[in-house]
Parts: sequence; structure tokens; C-alpha cells
Amino acid sequence: MNDEPKSAPPAPWVLILAGGRGTRFWPASRRLRPKHVLPLLGAEGETLLQATVDRAGEITSADRVFIITAEEQQSVVVGACEGLAEANIILEPEPRNTAPAIALGLAHLQLRGAGPDDPVIVMPSDAWVADDVVFSQVMSRAVDAAFESEAVVTLGVRPDRPETGYGYLGLGEGVEVSVHGSGHGREVREVTEFREKPSRELAQQYLDSGAWWWNAGIFVFRLGYMAQLMGEVNADLDVGRPLQEAVQGGAMEDLAEQYRCLPDISVDHGVMEQAPSVLTVEANFGWSDLGSWHALAPALEAGPGGCARADLVVAEDAEANIVYAPGKTVALLGVQDLVVVATDDAVLVVPRSRAQDVRVIVEQLADAGEDGLL
Amino acid sequence: MNDEPKSAPPAPWVLILAGGRGTRFWPASRRLRPKHVLPLLGAEGETLLQATVDRAGEITSADRVFIITAEEQQSVVVGACEGLAEANIILEPEPRNTAPAIALGLAHLQLRGAGPDDPVIVMPSDAWVADDVVFSQVMSRAVDAAFESEAVVTLGVRPDRPETGYGYLGLGEGVEVSVHGSGHGREVREVTEFREKPSRELAQQYLDSGAWWWNAGIFVFRLGYMAQLMGEVNADLDVGRPLQEAVQGGAMEDLAEQYRCLPDISVDHGVMEQAPSVLTVEANFGWSDLGSWHALAPALEAGPGGCARADLVVAEDAEANIVYAPGKTVALLGVQDLVVVATDDAVLVVPRSRAQDVRVIVEQLADAGEDGLL
Repeated sequence: MNDEPKSAPPAPWVLILAGGRGTRFWPASRRLRPKHVLPLLGAEGETLLQATVDRAGEITSADRVFIITAEEQQSVVVGACEGLAEANIILEPEPRNTAPAIALGLAHLQLRGAGPDDPVIVMPSDAWVADDVVFSQVMSRAVDAAFESEAVVTLGVRPDRPETGYGYLGLGEGVEVSVHGSGHGREVREVTEFREKPSRELAQQYLDSGAWWWNAGIFVFRLGYMAQLMGEVNADLDVGRPLQEAVQGGAMEDLAEQYRCLPDISVDHGVMEQAPSVLTVEANFGWSDLGSWHALAPALEAGPGGCARADLVVAEDAEANIVYAPGKTVALLGVQDLVVVATDDAVLVVPRSRAQDVRVIVEQLADAGEDGLL
Repeated sequence: MNDEPKSAPPAPWVLILAGGRGTRFWPASRRLRPKHVLPLLGAEGETLLQATVDRAGEITSADRVFIITAEEQQSVVVGACEGLAEANIILEPEPRNTAPAIALGLAHLQLRGAGPDDPVIVMPSDAWVADDVVFSQVMSRAVDAAFESEAVVTLGVRPDRPETGYGYLGLGEGVEVSVHGSGHGREVREVTEFREKPSRELAQQYLDSGAWWWNAGIFVFRLGYMAQLMGEVNADLDVGRPLQEAVQGGAMEDLAEQYRCLPDISVDHGVMEQAPSVLTVEANFGWSDLGSWHALAPALEAGPGGCARADLVVAEDAEANIVYAPGKTVALLGVQDLVVVATDDAVLVVPRSRAQDVRVIVEQLADAGEDGLL
């Protein structure tokens, strides 16, 4: 890191990763109706993808916001978000891990004019953010830090419970970063360790120590730094000429051939954990990865019997339930802490405490060959 | 009662009361889709009404089986049962209590040729019977008893639990009845007392005493005896000429005028409890009034997670649930003893132990003016 403050960073580019299928939101989520295009949010039923695109639009200009998604999801993604040109939707030729997806994204950005010093923000399409203003401030701080550093800058969330389903960032020293944007006074810390899904005991220790934050899965880097890092970490993770030529050529077959050569590794384990330097900025904007129906509560409207997105909920002696049944009436009588989901063809009932096990149901359906329900 | 055995009774007439709306089966049951026309039974989803008509057809000839229903339910009743001529569907000009409905039925039977000594069986359209063969034997015995007696003959069910939702029959002396039909050896007892919905303590005493049976709501009488009894009990309950003339005339307006003059009383409280003599035959054919979703279990197919009528039930760590969701897939994960009902527009989730309170939900919907859901 330089001692001299740099000039203000260029406007960042944003890559929104929208490749997931979100099986834990079955029966609402399906192969061609993934979690990020469900009308989950608020009274109007905004999609997580739309909310993410809108947040990105507050950070940079719309022409610098890109979505990376599976080819089969193109039409649902186009339908689920407004204000984004179709040219900014990047299609994966086939489903791969996050490292190749980001390599593909970087190739696109370079062809659209992104330079090696341009900051790039990568974020998932399906997380929940409570305060968009604070989000912008935090991102500004992270962009400043990434622009000044030879480092990947992640966003970290101070834990408020011993969550065992998240990844954790072990915190090191504080780092001085010049302030160019709106992120005044936000601490930037070194990340010394990564830990995925700790045991309950370990998660409690992390919480008590104050030395571990949740990994929000949002990170920023200078394009040139990440391109170099990827090449160092894995020689096959080449965002250089062959991939760019295939992207530029526009033939999906050629791109698929190149894409298939990239290693099937995640950007977390395969790249970031190998990086010489990772920093983190506290993401105190109210965050959830919405990893299950249970986690959806803060994103829904409170009402009779719990919180819900439905035409009408009628409740009697019922509380703390989570209902998702757009277009339907749901009656809750004498039930607590349940998740109730209804679509036109399927219904799910599960205690909130078991909501993370919904994948077991999806596996049963897959084993039974019930493709129409997947 | 005569000491001399009479000749065998004529073939009985059957009046099936199908006027109820069954709000406790909401959201499946609605104003124009009452409980008795729901496809509740077995793998094929037979309706309770069809099963009742079929059972009646085993007791007597099809032309002697009649359904009494509300005018607004005519088309759903016609659609829900085969093997019955439309001329045998008797329409109430307006919803009234059971005594006027039976008076109307008797007027129809007389016009169709029923004589004063002909036995008439009245039965609800929406009860469940496990064994149709035993049912026929019991009915034969009850018909014999009614033919020989100046009495109404009810069917009584020996209780196996201290049920508080049923009516009870207090048992008196045994009665000798000649056997003409297939009901050999079945005991006929005097009924000395009626008791509706006793307290839990009283129901337990009734169960322990062995001196009380459940009132199955099925009863038999000679037409002439009931006509006379009704006139004695309430002079306005006249099944005589004005009502018959209105029925014969065929103009619904004239009939409505006559019908409106009949007292709004139930046949149980208003007539049978006033009768000088009531007898009962044990109805040991496996019976339930299917008074709530909870009671539906024996009528459904057992399968994963409990018993169900649905396209598919997927269950994990789930048991003893009751599912009714024709045409839909229902996933149960980590839930026990729940009722889960889904229609195209509504979902209900309630513990089996609270299933009798579903009317509270229906009342809430009515208060909110949600007529489309009623």
C-alpha cells in the first residue's frame, strides 16, 4: 500500500452473480424461477435481483452494472429487472463455479472499456440489505480501499448471533485508507483467516471474541489486480486473450469451448483465500443472505400470524409464522413458528427451525423423477 | 307394539338430507361446494353424497332414494352423484331447519306413492361408514323395528372415547322385534334421554357406564307415524294437503309460501325428543360424522407423513398429519398432527386438535366481507 493518498478512484463496475437456483426456497423457487426473481420483498413484491440492480445503480452508472447468469435463465432475468440493458446481461455458456463466472465477467468488462485500475464490485443477486444509503457509503469506502491496495476488499458483517450457516472472516490489524467517497470513518481491517460454517461452539467463541465477522460475499478489487491474482492462483484461470476473443466473437459455441477450459473453483476458496492480502470493511447496513425461508422474515411485511407475502392472511392464536403465497389466502389457526409456502402446484409446511432442510424435499423430488416440480 | 309379528315391511324410502354447507371443511368447502360434494374418500376421491346414495341403493330400489337439498346446490348435487334421477332431488325453496325439510320430503314421497305404513329412512349426506354390508344389515333391523312400532328408530353408535362433540342417546330396556331382513340378533333398545355435546366429565361417565350411545343422526319411521307425530308436536308442521298441493303444482313460489309457514325447528329437538317412544339399534358399521378435518383421517389413504388426498405428498420427519390438496403436491418437513388443506385460492394450516375451530376462520372471512372465499 502506498503512503501517498491516490487520486479518487474511477467509477466502479459491478458484476452481479445471478447463477443460483435457490433450492432452499422451494416450492417457490424452481430451476427456471430462481430465488432472485421471486417477488419476495415488501408489499409490492420486488425481486431480490431488482433490488440489487437498483442498489448498484446508486453506486455507479447503469452502463457499468452487469448481471452474470445461466443461459437458461436469460428470459426470467430480463423479465425480473428493469433499468438494465440486455447487453449488460452476461450469459454463462454452462453452469460453472464462481471463479470462472467472474473471469467471464472481467473479460466482458475489459471489452466494454474497463481498465486495469478500475474498481470492480462483485455481489450476489439474492442477498437482503435493509439500508440502501448506508450500503452506498460502505461500498464507497470499500472501493477507496481496493483502489489504493494490492488487495481484495470484502464486506464483513458484525455477528449478532452464533450463526453456523455463514462464512466467517478472522480480523487482523486496522488499515489506513484515504477517504474519497462517502464512507467516512469506517474501519478497514485486514483479514487473516477464512472459516466456513463453524460448529455451534466455535461460532459462539467467534461471537464472544469480537474478532470475527460474517463474510457477506460482496467484494471489491482493481480489475488488473484480480486478473493477475487469478493467473497466479491458477494458470488456467486466464481472463486474457482466448476468453476475450470468444466473448467478442459472440458465438456461444466458441465461448463454451473456452469456458469449459476454466477450472471449476469458487472465488472464495479458489482465489480469495489464496490472495496475499484481503481487507474487510464493516457492512453495517443490515444484511442477510436470505439463505432459507426462516431468514426471510425481515424482508416481509409483518401482519396477522407473523409476516407474509400473500393476498390475505387470516390468523387466530397464531404468531411468528412466515407465509409466502402470492395471490392466495392463507389461514393460520393455532400454529407458531411455521413456514407455510404455497404456489399453484405445491405447498410446503415446515417449522422455521427446520427451514434449512428444505433441500431434502427437493432431493426427494429429484430422486422420484418429479422434474415438473423442480 | 303388537305381540303378533307383522308381515315383512314394504321396501323403505330414503330421504338424504344434503342441506349443510360444512364450514368446518373450509377452504375446501364453500357455499356452492359443500362438504358432501367434496372428493374426500379414498384414492378415487368419491364424494360423501355419492357414497350415501350408493349405500341407500343397497337398501332399497333407486326410485325410492331422494335427496333434499338447497335450491342453490341443485347443480353441484346433480354433478356429484350418479345413479339418481333428477326427479328424486327435492329442492328446498329456502334454507330451513331439518323438521320442515323432512316434512317437505314426506310430501314428495306421498305424491310418489308412499303409503302410511311404508318405512322411511332419513340420513345425512355427509357421514362416513366403514362397512357397507353391516350398514345394510343394521338398516334392515331398524326398518323391521320401525315397521312394527309406534316409534322412531334411531341408529346408535357404541362410543369408544369421551367425545364431546356428539349427541348421546340414553339407553333403556331392550325391545323384542321380529326379524324379517338381514339384521339377525341385533339388539333394539329404548331411548330414555337425549343429550347434546356433554362436558368432558359427563362424556367420560357416559363412556364408562355403557348406558349411552352416540346418536348417528340416522333414523327410521313409518311415514304415517311421523306425519301424525309432527302434527301432534307442532300443529304448523303439517305435511298434509297445502304442502302436497304446492309440491304437486310445481311452482317454486307457491311452495316457498307454504314452506315459510312451517316452524323452523330441528327434527332432533323439535320432534324426536318429544316423541312418546324412540328406539335405537346399534350401528356397529364403523361410523363418523366427519365433523372436522381431524375426523377425516379414517376416510383418507395412509401414506408418507400421515394420511392424505393429494397428487403427491413428500414427507421427512413428519407423521400423523392430515392433508387435503387434490391436484397438488404437499411437502411436510418436521411437522406432526397438523391439518394442511390447499385449494387453488386458499391454504389452511391448523393442528388436528384445533380443527373444530375452523369456523372461527370462516367467521373472520365473513366479517371482512371476503365473500369470494366463502
